Amino acid sequence: MIHSTAKIGRNVTIKEDGIIGENVTLEDDVYIDYGCIIRDNVHIKKGSFIGARTIIGEYLMDFYKDKTNKVHPLIIGENALIRTENVIYGDTIIGDNFQSGHKVTIREKTIIGNNVRVGTLSDIQGYCEIGNYVGIHSNVHIGQKSKINDYVWIFPYVVLTNDPTPPSEVMLGVTIDSFAVIATGSIILPGVHVCEDGFVGAGAVVNRDVPKETVVVGNPAKEICSVSKIKNKLTGELVYPWRYTFKRGMPWEESGYESWYNSLDIRGDEKNV
Amino acid sequence: MIHSTAKIGRNVTIKEDGIIGENVTLEDDVYIDYGCIIRDNVHIKKGSFIGARTIIGEYLMDFYKDKTNKVHPLIIGENALIRTENVIYGDTIIGDNFQSGHKVTIREKTIIGNNVRVGTLSDIQGYCEIGNYVGIHSNVHIGQKSKINDYVWIFPYVVLTNDPTPPSEVMLGVTIDSFAVIATGSIILPGVHVCEDGFVGAGAVVNRDVPKETVVVGNPAKEICSVSKIKNKLTGELVYPWRYTFKRGMPWEESGYESWYNSLDIRGDEKNV
Amino acid sequence: MIHSTAKIGRNVTIKEDGIIGENVTLEDDVYIDYGCIIRDNVHIKKGSFIGARTIIGEYLMDFYKDKTNKVHPLIIGENALIRTENVIYGDTIIGDNFQSGHKVTIREKTIIGNNVRVGTLSDIQGYCEIGNYVGIHSNVHIGQKSKINDYVWIFPYVVLTNDPTPPSEVMLGVTIDSFAVIATGSIILPGVHVCEDGFVGAGAVVNRDVPKETVVVGNPAKEICSVSKIKNKLTGELVYPWRYTFKRGMPWEESGYESWYNSLDIRGDEKNV
Repeated sequence: MIHSTAKIGRNVTIKEDGIIGENVTLEDDVYIDYGCIIRDNVHIKKGSFIGARTIIGEYLMDFYKDKTNKVHPLIIGENALIRTENVIYGDTIIGDNFQSGHKVTIREKTIIGNNVRVGTLSDIQGYCEIGNYVGIHSNVHIGQKSKINDYVWIFPYVVLTNDPTPPSEVMLGVTIDSFAVIATGSIILPGVHVCEDGFVGAGAVVNRDVPKETVVVGNPAKEICSVSKIKNKLTGELVYPWRYTFKRGMPWEESGYESWYNSLDIRGDEKNV
Repeated sequence: MIHSTAKIGRNVTIKEDGIIGENVTLEDDVYIDYGCIIRDNVHIKKGSFIGARTIIGEYLMDFYKDKTNKVHPLIIGENALIRTENVIYGDTIIGDNFQSGHKVTIREKTIIGNNVRVGTLSDIQGYCEIGNYVGIHSNVHIGQKSKINDYVWIFPYVVLTNDPTPPSEVMLGVTIDSFAVIATGSIILPGVHVCEDGFVGAGAVVNRDVPKETVVVGNPAKEICSVSKIKNKLTGELVYPWRYTFKRGMPWEESGYESWYNSLDIRGDEKNV
Repeated sequence: MIHSTAKIGRNVTIKEDGIIGENVTLEDDVYIDYGCIIRDNVHIKKGSFIGARTIIGEYLMDFYKDKTNKVHPLIIGENALIRTENVIYGDTIIGDNFQSGHKVTIREKTIIGNNVRVGTLSDIQGYCEIGNYVGIHSNVHIGQKSKINDYVWIFPYVVLTNDPTPPSEVMLGVTIDSFAVIATGSIILPGVHVCEDGFVGAGAVVNRDVPKETVVVGNPAKEICSVSKIKNKLTGELVYPWRYTFKRGMPWEESGYESWYNSLDIRGDEKNV
């Protein structure tokens, strides 16, 4: 069922049992796999793929009062690869080249930059800001009011919390600065600020700010060293800050970080990293 | 497909691709969104909303032997708000005003009171008792034989376990008394009893009972203080027992806890809190 | 929609809204519940049950380049019981008597033996080897390059990691030997080897190998004793190695482990346990 007001571009594929609502825009070369529900006012930009049974433009709380859909626009950027059974709410903006695993939830009032990846089962609770080139792995929970800057990595089963005295009406989100790494299964307590190049070890419970370029581990987390001390166990080489040693999928993939960064300067672009 | 034996009340909405089984009762003003499977013998009370592709009355193990559905009734109370892709088994009773997030699983032999909320991805494994006004956040795992009393809060990624020497045939469920708070990512070991107003800190691994009004933190969890010592970091005010400082969605929302409690007494109601 | 090239055995049930792709084989007595997507080149052996809306033969990354399915065969053994909304990728082999909960994800290049169980929400990330009689409980994350031998138990919210210096291109999988037990919520760091009969306590963060028959607990995990010291708290009886005290669903269910093991010898079978 495709609503008569939907705008469908060229070379768009819509597989069986799809539902396309009012005022939906599907740009050229969009592919909607079997059984998707694209609710009203969703705009999906060109070249994006939507996996089977994903729900885009899910209802906000105001729907349930009178069972009528209010206007909560949702924009999904170009060349998205959204796998099966995601649920993405209205009032959200997702940038270009977004990729998600299966069964991801993204709630309302979330702003996501370009080149972001979110793994299977992750749950972004809404009212969040996520920068560019952020990698969120599987089964990560991003509480409301979280702010995640560019080039941050968050690994499986990490939870960013927000209520300092649960249950309460207060929400103190977590802030994670650029190039920080939050390893598997760590819990970041409300209002904590992880500074640039900070590294939170696996299973840490972090109740204080993590200074720049600092490694914290344990429950409760304690500072143990500078990230510059961490070596690759196999090669003995220094690894961090990781932008000098890792480039797959990054804007410096071709040239390495330093050349890329210097080229930004030469071209006069805003040098924000 | 709506089975001929189904009883459908007034002003019921059933969206496309729904399946309504034998002896299903949908009371007045029920709304069944797109693609739900309501299996045999399910009773959904008035005003309830069932989100897209939710499965209600899921098969128990006895189905798989001969692929025929046995009678395992399921009752969902009035004014439920069940979001998309939940799976709720037969032989379960859910009270009024239930709310769930996306992709929640609730297995057989679960008894849930009124005004309970269960967040996205949470998994209630069955053979559990959950009281009234219990808040279970996202991605919580409630093992079989758990008993959760009224006004309990359980935050994301908490696990209530039940096997003291895994793998074994023994099941020692966790018991959580009224007004207790179990913070994010804590693990409660088998048979542990968290007493009234107990507070389990984030990331704690709890292998002993938690006394009344006591805070435990760490791995393994240790008692650190009375809950009456915890202050709001911003205002310096004391916070716990939380029923005196938090009221949203509680029966004392209008009047505050003390007035509400005293009014119970005056009216001669059973004073069970 | 059943593709004309599909081979359908005797007494096969395919419920409404199913999609059966090219070159799919469904052997005798297979049951495909409502709304399943069985993509091209999937082979499901006799007596298997596929729960509602499960997707079998999911696309690998090479699909997305030109939106055409490449040949990535998938074999599911006899008598599987796969519950609702699983997603299982191509290029995977699953043995006989497999059971899964709801919403399980199994990615490509996974080889799973016979009599394996995987609980609700668990996520096997692919490029893994899993032996026979392995029990993986709910919401477990098995990273790429993990090797899990026969008779291993893994409990809820365990994560097997693989990147020693995240983010990096290195993948050092975890190896778990036969009869080991990994309790709830523990995190096994990259390259760690848990030896035969090893026991990882709940909530442990394991950054070193676990010797044979050894218990480790804590964050970071430390050795505390031999598994032979662990007693059942109720009866005082010794419990481990568990194969002498637990037999439900094991090949020694009838006779007990010792008789079964000795009978293997007498019959001249390969004595590999």
